[in-house]
Amino acid sequence: MKKIINDPNKYLSEMLEGIYIAHQNQLTYVNDDPQCLVTKTKKAGKVGIATGGGSGHLPLFLGYVGDGMLDGCSVGDVFQSPSAEQMHAITKEIDSGAGVLYIYGNYNGDIFNFDMAAEMADFEDGIRVETVLGADDVASIGPLSQDEKTTRRGVAGIFFVYKCAGAAADKMMSLDTVTRIARKASWNTRTLGVALTSCVVPRVGHAGFHIEEDEMEIGMGIHGETGIRRGKIETADQITEEMMNKIIEDLPYAPGDRVAVLVNGLGATPLDEQYIVTRKINQLLMDKGIAVHRYYVGEYATSLEMAGVSISLLKLDEELTELIDYPANTPFFKQL
Amino acid sequence: MKKIINDPNKYLSEMLEGIYIAHQNQLTYVNDDPQCLVTKTKKAGKVGIATGGGSGHLPLFLGYVGDGMLDGCSVGDVFQSPSAEQMHAITKEIDSGAGVLYIYGNYNGDIFNFDMAAEMADFEDGIRVETVLGADDVASIGPLSQDEKTTRRGVAGIFFVYKCAGAAADKMMSLDTVTRIARKASWNTRTLGVALTSCVVPRVGHAGFHIEEDEMEIGMGIHGETGIRRGKIETADQITEEMMNKIIEDLPYAPGDRVAVLVNGLGATPLDEQYIVTRKINQLLMDKGIAVHRYYVGEYATSLEMAGVSISLLKLDEELTELIDYPANTPFFKQL
Repeated sequence: MKKIINDPNKYLSEMLEGIYIAHQNQLTYVNDDPQCLVTKTKKAGKVGIATGGGSGHLPLFLGYVGDGMLDGCSVGDVFQSPSAEQMHAITKEIDSGAGVLYIYGNYNGDIFNFDMAAEMADFEDGIRVETVLGADDVASIGPLSQDEKTTRRGVAGIFFVYKCAGAAADKMMSLDTVTRIARKASWNTRTLGVALTSCVVPRVGHAGFHIEEDEMEIGMGIHGETGIRRGKIETADQITEEMMNKIIEDLPYAPGDRVAVLVNGLGATPLDEQYIVTRKINQLLMDKGIAVHRYYVGEYATSLEMAGVSISLLKLDEELTELIDYPANTPFFKQL
Repeated sequence: MKKIINDPNKYLSEMLEGIYIAHQNQLTYVNDDPQCLVTKTKKAGKVGIATGGGSGHLPLFLGYVGDGMLDGCSVGDVFQSPSAEQMHAITKEIDSGAGVLYIYGNYNGDIFNFDMAAEMADFEDGIRVETVLGADDVASIGPLSQDEKTTRRGVAGIFFVYKCAGAAADKMMSLDTVTRIARKASWNTRTLGVALTSCVVPRVGHAGFHIEEDEMEIGMGIHGETGIRRGKIETADQITEEMMNKIIEDLPYAPGDRVAVLVNGLGATPLDEQYIVTRKINQLLMDKGIAVHRYYVGEYATSLEMAGVSISLLKLDEELTELIDYPANTPFFKQL
């Protein structure tokens, strides 16, 4: 295990200590619990937006708490859900009367805890909570359905849901509207990833799975969940084309559509390679008559030191375009 | 070699193609040469600032071309200097009568080519060019001297020189003033890094050096240059303390000083670990009575997929503080 860490049991608490030191102007926590992270610059009367999930995916989740994005985030230990109590504490803090929207990835542990937190907020505090799940991974088994009863995992594409819903809330839209927009952004988003190496959970101390030196796995989840297929590493163009075909046919994205594109590094893959992939994505979309409104390239949702990339598309309409273009200012994401 | 690439000989050109696609609102190139990158939003009458160097260090160098930072950048192939002709083409493009400042790392190839470009700009075009080198790596052999005749390598700390000089130029200061400020920022900056793994230059196809699974090397350069010592991996706190002691005693930074801190990931090290290091840096600086004005944490200057971090300190005075706080908007660095 090649890591610059101290006691693996202090990994989360020491990481969070660093976060609060570096971003002390923007972030603080409630309930005397550093895992209950909230913005320092909440707008009064605004719909509150909270997220949460396991650590190990920085800048996901907590890095998007800030102006024009999210108001609070509860983080669990590496790849583990935070508790209902933690999410409840955040919910109380970020509500200012307009209600709260939860946006998080479709994982059972998170659903169990966040549903319980929503019930606690309702019964104990009279706070209305709505939920929109990120479920963008086309590699996951099972169909996606608009009523949220989905078996699909949430991966990097949740960034688009944060971006659109966060802008809508910042524009002082109602909880119903922000929820509708978040659901549309979630539905319009599809992601597929490729992994070249495993990552190492600090407490575990060894790789989560074995993959040969000349192998890749298309569709691997961000916790190492089994993907669509494993095979020899191909060229960037071949990999990108296979991924894009699966993404495009899934929604489907069609000629005449306009999209935002997120090319996301999983942790150890240089930006250079992400741009080589971006170049091929652009060719493929041009060939298909799909226009790109905006590219985001970089590490937006990682799996510790996993090597690989994911590609996400968000199909835009006029409403979502305006929200994608809206400014944001968080510790890890700034758009002017 | 686990990389998502096509032909290694097209690595640079395909990466640059992706860069221009993703950042088409901010970046373009001159001389029909994608390796001659310039901002699209140059201010008339402003001192032009150019940088350059080998590829493989993204977001260094070209990622800092934009508002409040740099105006142009010539990039060579991975770890190789661009040519004098390329730097000359950029110099002509970004000069608007106020002269041009070159800021780049202290490497012989770059010095040879950029000195020649400066002469060409002077003789052929009557453009005055000044030069300030980044030479912040306390691990390099030999003394640092204020007259630039130094044997020290330039590493991540050059970000601070860009930031201060870029802000000064954007405030329409003269070439003499911008140069003086860049020289002060460069002199006031010290960096030390630790590497856990090698990186792989695409054309070479294998690791640049071997390092055991339980080893680290303190002071390794960003091209794999030999560092201060190799040894078993220690805890984050031990590594950080050793690095900070060497950095602090070098300038030296003294009780009562005020600094900016850059914690930089070398490519494959998760942000989590960078924040664990940040936490310890903060403790050590508090213990020494050195105040921190601002932290920057993330990947600012990488070595492809090398695992490791570097720490840079910039000693601030009133003038540099104002420039560090000045806004910037480049593809890879935004400060509001």
